[in-house]
Amino acid sequence: MKTDAGRSAVLIGAGNVAAHLAPALQEAGFTISQVFSAQGKSAAALAKKTGAKAVRQLSALQPEATLYLIAVKDDAIGSLAKKLKIKKGLVVHTSGSVALDVLKPAGQPHGVLYPLQSLSKKRALDMQQVPLCIEASDKKTLKALKEIAQQLSQHVYPLDSKQRRAAHLAAIFANNFTNHFYAIAAELLSENKLPFDLLRPLILETAMKALDMPPAEAQTGPALRHDKQVMKRHLELLKKHPRWAELYALASKDIADTH
Amino acid sequence: MKTDAGRSAVLIGAGNVAAHLAPALQEAGFTISQVFSAQGKSAAALAKKTGAKAVRQLSALQPEATLYLIAVKDDAIGSLAKKLKIKKGLVVHTSGSVALDVLKPAGQPHGVLYPLQSLSKKRALDMQQVPLCIEASDKKTLKALKEIAQQLSQHVYPLDSKQRRAAHLAAIFANNFTNHFYAIAAELLSENKLPFDLLRPLILETAMKALDMPPAEAQTGPALRHDKQVMKRHLELLKKHPRWAELYALASKDIADTH
Repeated sequence: MKTDAGRSAVLIGAGNVAAHLAPALQEAGFTISQVFSAQGKSAAALAKKTGAKAVRQLSALQPEATLYLIAVKDDAIGSLAKKLKIKKGLVVHTSGSVALDVLKPAGQPHGVLYPLQSLSKKRALDMQQVPLCIEASDKKTLKALKEIAQQLSQHVYPLDSKQRRAAHLAAIFANNFTNHFYAIAAELLSENKLPFDLLRPLILETAMKALDMPPAEAQTGPALRHDKQVMKRHLELLKKHPRWAELYALASKDIADTH
Repeated sequence: MKTDAGRSAVLIGAGNVAAHLAPALQEAGFTISQVFSAQGKSAAALAKKTGAKAVRQLSALQPEATLYLIAVKDDAIGSLAKKLKIKKGLVVHTSGSVALDVLKPAGQPHGVLYPLQSLSKKRALDMQQVPLCIEASDKKTLKALKEIAQQLSQHVYPLDSKQRRAAHLAAIFANNFTNHFYAIAAELLSENKLPFDLLRPLILETAMKALDMPPAEAQTGPALRHDKQVMKRHLELLKKHPRWAELYALASKDIADTH
């Protein structure tokens, strides 16, 4: 397969991130030429959608492309990069937490394109609104990666490795832990025969507020007010869930001390 | 002031909750006749807005009204109820955590109308979409309160005291703690010279997902994947913030054990 006719992208991985970046790359004028996945099924589906060829062997990857986009699990990126036999192409991974230089063994200019968003195949998202954190092995590569990223999204942030790690850690708090707290709340409601619907407007408004003002300014609640009576009652209610009681006490202490 | 001409409401308190319920009551056909607040300024502003009379002395409250809506701080409700001299009217507080029977000393049918939402004067909200949790001293009062609540909102939930307390506790997780986690994330970004804008789309999408599917199903991240390497690195990054490291470890442990 030749790439002379324009820019081509090879997708390595066919999960949530690849599924969202593929159509964005196509809109930016890329041809998706191959989709690799060791699990054939997801690669076949994404390949069909994008008009690419599904590939189940790394050895079958074409030796040249504009972009090799590695969107596999964090702990598989390094070993995969070692196996790549690429003659020419920009090699990029999409992880928030994996170091840039695990891509060095690929022997090509390399970088990171980390979409700071929760991507799942089930939910449509406008990639133009997704913050893309980029990083590259050298200035020339950064320039090339930035040009591509800016075609995919209106919000491109060149970060260094330390900043990317901090952004990823911040995302753990803003997404993983908040979502887990939604789940705790859902369980507390369910134990009392109450529907989760009761909390959905509050969850949405809490997030909407964060779009409007610094979250520290929006803080409310018994911990902020140092309302010890209410907090004590809540801890009693959480007797059956000692770890949630611990989380409650710790988060409340931190809120009280911060404000 | 007579109430024969229609339904009248007396607002006791002129904070965020009163400011949001007042226009909703007016739209439901209530006349706001008085607004009480010990701090004259906020009462005067809300009274002006609603065409009511501002009152700074409890003794100046009219003896009869359809509804006395107590929307003051949690720990002030009980002592205030003892001082009320009402001849006729439904006395209601709006707190998630205060018991119903602190209103008993008012000597009138009483209830709770707890809006399960984060209300602030700065942000407009459609009260029709705000879940209202109601509770009352007896069946007849519950019926009357339900009728009023259903005119204010499309989402009215009659709860008992235990359920209301659970809903309030769940709201602490879904609002107070998530908002604090946004603030932690903002600080982590700021320490690395990164703008909070980087996280806003993720925060919104995380909340939007919870409108669509049970949060437990939407869970992602290193704790879910039991990715010990990433978690270890994150804890190192949090060295300067021992309590956030503790929160990180505890939340991660809970996610790992839940899934």
